[in-house]
Amino acid sequence: MAQQHLDPTDPTAGAVTGDALAGYLRAQATEFLRALRLHRETGGQAAGAAEPVDAARALRRSARRISASLHTFRPLLDPDWSEEMRPELAWLSGTLGLEHACEARLERLLLALHRLSGATVLPAQAVDVAVAAGSRATGAARAATAAVPSTGGPAHATATTERGTLTVGAAKAGALLERQLTLARTRAHSTALQALGSSRFHAVADKVAVLASEVPLTPAASATALHPLAAAAEERLTDAVAALPLVTAGHPYNAEALVHGLSPDPAPHPQDSPWHQVRLLLRLHRYAREVLHGGDAPVDVRLLTAGQALNRHRDASEAAAAAAQAARTPRITPATAYALGVLHADQRHEVEAARFAFQQAWLKQTVPAP
Amino acid sequence: MAQQHLDPTDPTAGAVTGDALAGYLRAQATEFLRALRLHRETGGQAAGAAEPVDAARALRRSARRISASLHTFRPLLDPDWSEEMRPELAWLSGTLGLEHACEARLERLLLALHRLSGATVLPAQAVDVAVAAGSRATGAARAATAAVPSTGGPAHATATTERGTLTVGAAKAGALLERQLTLARTRAHSTALQALGSSRFHAVADKVAVLASEVPLTPAASATALHPLAAAAEERLTDAVAALPLVTAGHPYNAEALVHGLSPDPAPHPQDSPWHQVRLLLRLHRYAREVLHGGDAPVDVRLLTAGQALNRHRDASEAAAAAAQAARTPRITPATAYALGVLHADQRHEVEAARFAFQQAWLKQTVPAP
Repeated sequence: MAQQHLDPTDPTAGAVTGDALAGYLRAQATEFLRALRLHRETGGQAAGAAEPVDAARALRRSARRISASLHTFRPLLDPDWSEEMRPELAWLSGTLGLEHACEARLERLLLALHRLSGATVLPAQAVDVAVAAGSRATGAARAATAAVPSTGGPAHATATTERGTLTVGAAKAGALLERQLTLARTRAHSTALQALGSSRFHAVADKVAVLASEVPLTPAASATALHPLAAAAEERLTDAVAALPLVTAGHPYNAEALVHGLSPDPAPHPQDSPWHQVRLLLRLHRYAREVLHGGDAPVDVRLLTAGQALNRHRDASEAAAAAAQAARTPRITPATAYALGVLHADQRHEVEAARFAFQQAWLKQTVPAP
Repeated sequence: MAQQHLDPTDPTAGAVTGDALAGYLRAQATEFLRALRLHRETGGQAAGAAEPVDAARALRRSARRISASLHTFRPLLDPDWSEEMRPELAWLSGTLGLEHACEARLERLLLALHRLSGATVLPAQAVDVAVAAGSRATGAARAATAAVPSTGGPAHATATTERGTLTVGAAKAGALLERQLTLARTRAHSTALQALGSSRFHAVADKVAVLASEVPLTPAASATALHPLAAAAEERLTDAVAALPLVTAGHPYNAEALVHGLSPDPAPHPQDSPWHQVRLLLRLHRYAREVLHGGDAPVDVRLLTAGQALNRHRDASEAAAAAAQAARTPRITPATAYALGVLHADQRHEVEAARFAFQQAWLKQTVPAP
């Protein structure tokens, strides 16, 4: 590809036009169709191998990129088509992502419970086994038994063994979270399966199939430079970052993230929203760079690190909320509630740590390394 | 005093001998007697003013310094006298310090509960009022009513008003901690009053009175340099600091302090002990410097900051233990237990933050500022 060595900050990068966007969208649409084919070939099996998970991830990966490009380069694309396509792609990647999110959240919380229990040897292998077993069990077989977790299955057996090193409170908290998040995951799995079989999904897939060969650019798009639109996406990111409390975040142990740890407000921490927003804008910026570089963008370690910090921020924020939510389950023991309180606070400190990590990563551009 | 401008790192500081130690001990004994007189003049009043608290603090202050000097400069003092005196001084300052410790712990925990409840306006004034009221009420009047906290009194009324902004769990946790720590404080107060009226105390006071005019130095002490003994105290400190996990502590959000947050072991965190030990050794070093400088040591901001970090470490460690202890109270509600879990984790993060602060303060000497 001719554009692969272009730098978005290079003034000649203005030469990248709507044609590059069309090439990128065709490539992503092709990826989407490949993932879909893989999913159909393997996903029908009960208790299938890891492929359906990877296929679902690849589907989401390209759906996100198509959706982001439609957003950033909106003026270059047929507006009716764009308006119709974006919410469908958002629905799809949201629906497909939920199962994995529940699984990752449970894994994060169980690992934290182990860490907090001071297990001298962190049972990394045991957790690996549990996670692998869990991944393998995300198919239909798992869905069939998950509603009755006490009947066992490999994931359950492993978790029980692990829990031998925990206090009663930590063990009960772990069991409660496992029950609640496994149920949520099972529901998410069913919803994803239903979604993939729905006419709504088939309509999206058909549109993506068309996109793989024919991108609905506006008449002027071929001659229109992408750079200003990509720059606007970057500006939205830098503006949003500038509004973050980065000075506080850069001061270790500022105790900001737990400020609402016992707030009477049951809603998720409003202080997290601007960070979640930056996470999305950072992703849009990264994908716009990919478009400019013809899908061959050099890896920007700083953006990658900053993005990982924001992913960790989001994950910890949601894990903390799940612990707080579990603590509202009726008839739990005080020991369980205590363990969930410790766990909640621990994850809120992870939120704070992730903000610190983002601040450190972000400053690496502004202040050149010595 | 001739020694006041001597620097312990200065080789000529060897000129400071046992005579300077005798001068320092006489001065501290005089301070002790002055504080005791102040305490006797004011301490008998019911619901007395702030003076008895200050007098008790001054008593502890000089008892600690005398005891520390007996330890550091042991070879220069009559061994039988030293051996007899030190445990008595330790008993005295321990007994007198307990009431203040309970009070400070409760204040720390209630402030944390407010912070964690995200009160948009932190009720600093209200807490100041409560603290002032609490201090004023440490006399006999408080002791008489504290066993029945629900009968009210200014501190109780203020606490109730404050709790209006808390969740049920936080409010109940606060009330539980207030009940438990007020009871502990009341007991500590009675124990301190009993101690001050005991024949054991009178024996110590008599010995200190003798010390104010006559220090039992060994025959050779007058001609013996203090510097090697002070240097040995400093070496014990630097050795203990070198054994601390300072690399970990200097890495923000290392999540070390909460590693045993849900450990089945009910004992206080063993990882805190080396830090507590350094706190004591730092104090011995500070007092040895005072002796060398004839009680006129220039303030070493770095030592002061490091010491404050270690005080905060100790306070947070004990507050976290008090929250964990309160969570073991039978028949508490899950909401109370959850709030105590959050509070415990919060204080353990304070422990971690204090270690970070110590590491930063300590490095300021080793690595000269740019």
